Amino acid sequence: MSKVVSFGEMLMCLASPGSVRLRQSKSLDIDFGGAEANVAVSLAQFGEDVSFVTRLPKNDMAELAIMSLKSFGVNTHNVHWGGNRLGLYYFENGAVYRGSKVIYDRDHSSMSTIETNSINWDEVFEDAEWFHWTGITPALSASAFNVTKEALKAAKAKGVTISGDYNYRKNLWNWGVEAEEVMPELMNYCDIMSGIHPNVDVVKEKVSDELYAEAGQQMMDKYPNCKLVVFTARGSVSASHNTWAGILYDGERVYRSCTYNLTHIVDRVGGGDSFMAALIYALRNYETKQEAVDFAAAASTLKHFVVGDQNICSVEEVEALMGGDRNGLISR
Amino acid sequence: MSKVVSFGEMLMCLASPGSVRLRQSKSLDIDFGGAEANVAVSLAQFGEDVSFVTRLPKNDMAELAIMSLKSFGVNTHNVHWGGNRLGLYYFENGAVYRGSKVIYDRDHSSMSTIETNSINWDEVFEDAEWFHWTGITPALSASAFNVTKEALKAAKAKGVTISGDYNYRKNLWNWGVEAEEVMPELMNYCDIMSGIHPNVDVVKEKVSDELYAEAGQQMMDKYPNCKLVVFTARGSVSASHNTWAGILYDGERVYRSCTYNLTHIVDRVGGGDSFMAALIYALRNYETKQEAVDFAAAASTLKHFVVGDQNICSVEEVEALMGGDRNGLISR
Amino acid sequence: MSKVVSFGEMLMCLASPGSVRLRQSKSLDIDFGGAEANVAVSLAQFGEDVSFVTRLPKNDMAELAIMSLKSFGVNTHNVHWGGNRLGLYYFENGAVYRGSKVIYDRDHSSMSTIETNSINWDEVFEDAEWFHWTGITPALSASAFNVTKEALKAAKAKGVTISGDYNYRKNLWNWGVEAEEVMPELMNYCDIMSGIHPNVDVVKEKVSDELYAEAGQQMMDKYPNCKLVVFTARGSVSASHNTWAGILYDGERVYRSCTYNLTHIVDRVGGGDSFMAALIYALRNYETKQEAVDFAAAASTLKHFVVGDQNICSVEEVEALMGGDRNGLISR
Amino acid sequence: MSKVVSFGEMLMCLASPGSVRLRQSKSLDIDFGGAEANVAVSLAQFGEDVSFVTRLPKNDMAELAIMSLKSFGVNTHNVHWGGNRLGLYYFENGAVYRGSKVIYDRDHSSMSTIETNSINWDEVFEDAEWFHWTGITPALSASAFNVTKEALKAAKAKGVTISGDYNYRKNLWNWGVEAEEVMPELMNYCDIMSGIHPNVDVVKEKVSDELYAEAGQQMMDKYPNCKLVVFTARGSVSASHNTWAGILYDGERVYRSCTYNLTHIVDRVGGGDSFMAALIYALRNYETKQEAVDFAAAASTLKHFVVGDQNICSVEEVEALMGGDRNGLISR
Amino acid sequence: MSKVVSFGEMLMCLASPGSVRLRQSKSLDIDFGGAEANVAVSLAQFGEDVSFVTRLPKNDMAELAIMSLKSFGVNTHNVHWGGNRLGLYYFENGAVYRGSKVIYDRDHSSMSTIETNSINWDEVFEDAEWFHWTGITPALSASAFNVTKEALKAAKAKGVTISGDYNYRKNLWNWGVEAEEVMPELMNYCDIMSGIHPNVDVVKEKVSDELYAEAGQQMMDKYPNCKLVVFTARGSVSASHNTWAGILYDGERVYRSCTYNLTHIVDRVGGGDSFMAALIYALRNYETKQEAVDFAAAASTLKHFVVGDQNICSVEEVEALMGGDRNGLISR
Amino acid sequence: MSKVVSFGEMLMCLASPGSVRLRQSKSLDIDFGGAEANVAVSLAQFGEDVSFVTRLPKNDMAELAIMSLKSFGVNTHNVHWGGNRLGLYYFENGAVYRGSKVIYDRDHSSMSTIETNSINWDEVFEDAEWFHWTGITPALSASAFNVTKEALKAAKAKGVTISGDYNYRKNLWNWGVEAEEVMPELMNYCDIMSGIHPNVDVVKEKVSDELYAEAGQQMMDKYPNCKLVVFTARGSVSASHNTWAGILYDGERVYRSCTYNLTHIVDRVGGGDSFMAALIYALRNYETKQEAVDFAAAASTLKHFVVGDQNICSVEEVEALMGGDRNGLISR
Repeated sequence: MSKVVSFGEMLMCLASPGSVRLRQSKSLDIDFGGAEANVAVSLAQFGEDVSFVTRLPKNDMAELAIMSLKSFGVNTHNVHWGGNRLGLYYFENGAVYRGSKVIYDRDHSSMSTIETNSINWDEVFEDAEWFHWTGITPALSASAFNVTKEALKAAKAKGVTISGDYNYRKNLWNWGVEAEEVMPELMNYCDIMSGIHPNVDVVKEKVSDELYAEAGQQMMDKYPNCKLVVFTARGSVSASHNTWAGILYDGERVYRSCTYNLTHIVDRVGGGDSFMAALIYALRNYETKQEAVDFAAAASTLKHFVVGDQNICSVEEVEALMGGDRNGLISR
Repeated sequence: MSKVVSFGEMLMCLASPGSVRLRQSKSLDIDFGGAEANVAVSLAQFGEDVSFVTRLPKNDMAELAIMSLKSFGVNTHNVHWGGNRLGLYYFENGAVYRGSKVIYDRDHSSMSTIETNSINWDEVFEDAEWFHWTGITPALSASAFNVTKEALKAAKAKGVTISGDYNYRKNLWNWGVEAEEVMPELMNYCDIMSGIHPNVDVVKEKVSDELYAEAGQQMMDKYPNCKLVVFTARGSVSASHNTWAGILYDGERVYRSCTYNLTHIVDRVGGGDSFMAALIYALRNYETKQEAVDFAAAASTLKHFVVGDQNICSVEEVEALMGGDRNGLISR
Repeated sequence: MSKVVSFGEMLMCLASPGSVRLRQSKSLDIDFGGAEANVAVSLAQFGEDVSFVTRLPKNDMAELAIMSLKSFGVNTHNVHWGGNRLGLYYFENGAVYRGSKVIYDRDHSSMSTIETNSINWDEVFEDAEWFHWTGITPALSASAFNVTKEALKAAKAKGVTISGDYNYRKNLWNWGVEAEEVMPELMNYCDIMSGIHPNVDVVKEKVSDELYAEAGQQMMDKYPNCKLVVFTARGSVSASHNTWAGILYDGERVYRSCTYNLTHIVDRVGGGDSFMAALIYALRNYETKQEAVDFAAAASTLKHFVVGDQNICSVEEVEALMGGDRNGLISR
Repeated sequence: MSKVVSFGEMLMCLASPGSVRLRQSKSLDIDFGGAEANVAVSLAQFGEDVSFVTRLPKNDMAELAIMSLKSFGVNTHNVHWGGNRLGLYYFENGAVYRGSKVIYDRDHSSMSTIETNSINWDEVFEDAEWFHWTGITPALSASAFNVTKEALKAAKAKGVTISGDYNYRKNLWNWGVEAEEVMPELMNYCDIMSGIHPNVDVVKEKVSDELYAEAGQQMMDKYPNCKLVVFTARGSVSASHNTWAGILYDGERVYRSCTYNLTHIVDRVGGGDSFMAALIYALRNYETKQEAVDFAAAASTLKHFVVGDQNICSVEEVEALMGGDRNGLISR
Repeated sequence: MSKVVSFGEMLMCLASPGSVRLRQSKSLDIDFGGAEANVAVSLAQFGEDVSFVTRLPKNDMAELAIMSLKSFGVNTHNVHWGGNRLGLYYFENGAVYRGSKVIYDRDHSSMSTIETNSINWDEVFEDAEWFHWTGITPALSASAFNVTKEALKAAKAKGVTISGDYNYRKNLWNWGVEAEEVMPELMNYCDIMSGIHPNVDVVKEKVSDELYAEAGQQMMDKYPNCKLVVFTARGSVSASHNTWAGILYDGERVYRSCTYNLTHIVDRVGGGDSFMAALIYALRNYETKQEAVDFAAAASTLKHFVVGDQNICSVEEVEALMGGDRNGLISR
Repeated sequence: MSKVVSFGEMLMCLASPGSVRLRQSKSLDIDFGGAEANVAVSLAQFGEDVSFVTRLPKNDMAELAIMSLKSFGVNTHNVHWGGNRLGLYYFENGAVYRGSKVIYDRDHSSMSTIETNSINWDEVFEDAEWFHWTGITPALSASAFNVTKEALKAAKAKGVTISGDYNYRKNLWNWGVEAEEVMPELMNYCDIMSGIHPNVDVVKEKVSDELYAEAGQQMMDKYPNCKLVVFTARGSVSASHNTWAGILYDGERVYRSCTYNLTHIVDRVGGGDSFMAALIYALRNYETKQEAVDFAAAASTLKHFVVGDQNICSVEEVEALMGGDRNGLISR
């Protein structure tokens, strides 16, 4: 019975090696992703007791996925076996003017065919203090939507803190409704949620606190349970060079991290997930919101220099960067 | 407009490298398979003008599949784009007591959702002399069954020679009928077909010509259009060591190749497909049935020492082996 | 608190790839070994609740070792951090007349500098039913010997079943005593132990039940607590071809598995450990000693066709081989 | 009979992996290049019906070269077999102050020993609309020079549009004449040709339209058949950072693309070839010269972020960049 | 009997591939390092007759180390066999905010257990003109300190020029003394030594000649034998972007190289060693100190674009960069 | 000035990895071969002071070849720089019925264009005791033939023992003479030479001593200087399974090694060279011809289990096999 619960789909990532395009590729590196699994893996590495809830088919590739989660210390007792497919995506890492590319092959996955009443949420949330979910899960299918609602209800009933990442992916919503029709019902369970970044090109222009406060307040007005709105500000100079910062709005004021200059990006996928995971950790382990946003921004900055969707780094490494150690000296 | 037409599903093969198990794998080698595509690739390498008909989704991975076919010289003008998935399978190569393992992920593929009347078979068979199909395609879905029937009717109408490989795969027949209910209608179009090997362990016992003639005659009695029944005799000493031979029955007599002793197998997948392809080539290019079975057995023997499902070898190499050059000396 | 506890040193294995010699190698594949860790990993894969007790330094390479254990589901809560080195060995896989080669670099490892009273054995053995150790640990240092004795005393006090593998390695005993001076004291705690194989070349000659009974009885006479003596019979035709069987003696009679003919060995390291692990599992999960020895022999046969020291296989796979499925057909 | 014909030598590229120097290399990645083959491959990917004419020896490595061309859809029916060598070069990719390095081993290649009257140019140019060649071919040998002249005469006689890239390589001209003695005769067949960039460091200084017009007009004065002069402007900040733009002069005015800032170059070899190929495509498929130069500059910009000499990209990708999508966002 | 002698520990470097973190790594690339071995390798590539003196265990991995030295032409006749361990370290290459990481596993190495009077220094220095050592060796153990002193005495007695690199590594000095207690005695033998860079952030501020002269003069006052003090000025913008320059002070004036802008670093480890090696070469082969510092700075700049600790480059390449060829054009 | 001198062409070997065919290959492993270089490398590993004489072009790939020789301790001072090409060959390793394949690309190599009077043979043979050459060198060109004759004359004049391997390769003799016209003049310088194996299939039939004596005596009658004729007896069961033995005839009697059963061959190329090298070593270091043939057969047996043309093994390993340690146990 873990303190933090994350629920969503785990995907296998098959990536062309190095700078090679998928159309040139002779082999694919195996990695694993999925927004909520990424969050679980980060939290486990930070030392949190975290459980990942999902549905996977009974085959060797799903076994590899589970072994990956277990290797990081994520509790997998709540993984349900069933269905026929491990969702997957092909990944090609970009450079400068050639953007990275993700080709999904996740339709009909075990997670998208999950059934209501198949998970004992009361058991899952026993002793839990935090629940994390994203808008990707309800997008998968009507039943996945319904199971997400089950989870949210159960979590709320247990008094668990809920964080939700809207994570709107237009191509996913294919089961007959528009996201905007059904998502508000789910979002309203959240204590903490991702906000919609003010429509400003952050490479060219500094975004004022006022704009963030305004955007955050709109969320809070729409979702009265919400106590904290979370933004990440990515400036895309090119596929190889971004700027990056984190911002929180708590209804009273805006907290901002410094802006990191990501000049030689290794892999930007999973940046947002690593921010959310680090924020959950920091809100649970630091005293102030300023520390929380600083930790989350530093952690997710490091993600950009790690291969794969998951942020392989430790609290010590995040704190070193957060503490100002930014010139990349050799550690011996 | 090619002389030989092969129709079926092309699959991406993702194989763990060397002797590594899938559960240990960190990367997967990309290859391509599918019984009918394997036949097309072999024929193209032997110099035949061959066209492959299939349906593939419009994405980079299917593009890779097409590029692979084209690299061997297979005509891909009759590939139809559509649907959402390139079917795939994971492959782990066995050794001795650990058998090779194939994990299919081909449900909902573009080929299984092919629709009737989508292919202009008259155009496909213009100038064609030979049509090859297998029992895998009708197993995929009702519509794939119907499109196969369309193809067979059109081929027959044009007077094209038809070869069919029953290739029964129990796990594939999931669309509501038993193979035996619907396959006879399709098999009856065939001039040449694979036979059911006499139920004898060929490692322990030599199978007599009489048994093959009996098995062949049963097929011919059932399918009166059939002029040639084809057998392969695989003796499984272990996953690393098999014996292998080919047999033909033409209603009058039995033709047998020598038996090859495959003592250090590299990869046995695709052995049957390479036999069928080489037989088609040999029936079209040699004078006697004895030569045909000898060529087909030699070609498919070489397949066991080639990585991947497809038989990368030339007519010259097959003829050298067929001609008795069996001690594997270095060619300088 | 796990049911089975294994205690010993975990080592990093750095292996030259494929058939390449270490002296030719440009990179090394990372794997993990150590007799007792191998046993723990096998048991975890068979579904046992197993805890591994060891001592590791606090660095990234030891972290990788732990991640490997966790990925298989081994409980690592009883890993103690301390000391300065992860022991390691370099591995070159042999072929025919060129034997495999292991170069140890394990002196001064964290495990060899373990200190008495550093492990709370009462806690470790709470709820435990089985304890496994080998003669490698007491060989490492005087303190490692003493900690092993602590463990055995505590296990015995709790009524835990104890299995010990003498595993005599001459080069390891460097701390000032001969193995024979001090090992008997430890061996005497064992309920189950490895026996010394009758001095017979099993390639040339069949070993009689009488010889095994005699060898087993000698052990039982020397160690009166011993209830079961375990033998593996390896016939070395060459580095690439061995024969393999398992034998048990329970004081009354001899139980033998069939003899497996390992004609194309992939990697023989860890064969004995995989036998011991499978035997522990089988004694706990099957009714008869005959089944136990059959399961153990089948499992350890599979190990010879798996890359690395650890036996990546499932109960289902072992049972299939044990049940007679020995010709290595493809599983689709 | 293809619409576009490219004629020249195809070379195997053996590249050290990643950032490793050739002197450190343990393996070499196989790729293929050669200016005119690069142009053919780009055009085929853009959907043009293109035929490549060359001469190759009959061996497995040349077969690989042909398979590579065919995989992209290049028509290889006009490849002539003969001679003894596939020309090759070794490639080491540079970084910042360490420039990339190409070591040629192409002497005595099959192409350099091509003989006059061996190619039926009338057949090659049947239905052709465009012919592309470069100054590399006549540099190889007297007979290669003469065959190039044969080709140009035949193309001109058929009214085919001719594009030529002077591509002066001092080290290649070893057959007894200076390039300047014999090239003008060949260049004079061209409708479109590469121009000599004004002698200005484009990193430090903007080159005026006047300078390009002047340089272009000089070409046109020298070669009166020329209707379009083509420039690429590369600014070399370092081996890892270049600027890049394309310029056309049509006798009346100068057309310029925007200047791309190539800040993290993956591989710059083949940049000029990809520009020429894209220009040919664009002149045939867009209405205006401005579109043509924009398409060519965008396509060749993408080449700098593709591994290998050949520009693996599609019309859609080029048009997206040309249309202003320059910040390298992820495509999902 | 070589002209230049370098003495120190050779280490095996086991590096995670590309940008992969050690905690993600499945294999490790084998390379070799150690400050003094790096110097020897550079000098041998520049054509100097150089001998490396060290102590290594008799096993395959140390044999690989020796083979590596020999491949570069370093004389290894003075390698002494003995002890039990080849020291090693694990290496993870950094990017931007994630610094590179070195994990040493060198305790108890053969070099650290070297014994006094085991090396015949008179023989080693016969015909020698230059001796190079660093502060890493005396840090290893009391006996290594004493052997270093033996070497320095013998070198001084033969009139050999001595260069020493203080190379203070806090974590290494574990044998009971502080570096500052014992190093001065050794440093005082040096004719040439590394100086302590003025405490200035060279990214933000230009360091004046006066500051270097002051720092150099302090060294000369403390070590009266010293004739030349050597500085490298590294500005760490990030792990991927540094600035780099070399500075000499000879008691009279300061000589500075230009400052190189290392914008896309491949591997910065060994930068200082490559500077020292190139300086030794240049002081022996050029006429002026200005040329010496220019050569050393150019050579060590190239090191940053070479994989591994050792500077794989030639005199010609260094001179090309030193001569102003800085825009990284392709060499064909 | 070395004791043993070997003269011939060094070739780069570019091999497809593992069991992959060249036509499937995406990368090539770099190795080095050439009969006489293989002999030099073996001798250096056995501890002989050996010098290799050849001619190589001045480029990075030839530098790699030299680094490889130096890494094994071969003296390369007598390598002459010149010409334009490093000869090379492509290699595909066979299996069972698919023989290994070597595709040469060595025409116009630096060695084939070597000039008479370019090597100071008096200097080369100063202090030399043994000279080894093969019939490959005179096959390359008239000048290579003449330089070989120069070498043989000089060696004979100095009283150096000469061993020659006829090594007839039909495809190489292209410079206008038949081998049999000119080789006898060179062979007549030899003290030791390879003999022509009796025309018997050694898999099926044991060859009698009488047959070897007869074949040897024929050589001695033809070449009266010859004191020892050397045979290797390879029985090709398949590309993966050979038998192997060595035989000497000294004019008086026949000496035979045992016959090795090479059941799982890793790489058979270089088997003959490794035999010759080991024989030279053994004739110089053992007392009896029986020991010599036993050592040579054991050493060349090990070669079949080593990747690459060169026999990476030590005297200790050969002696262990020669001494009867043939069951391939693990060395720990």
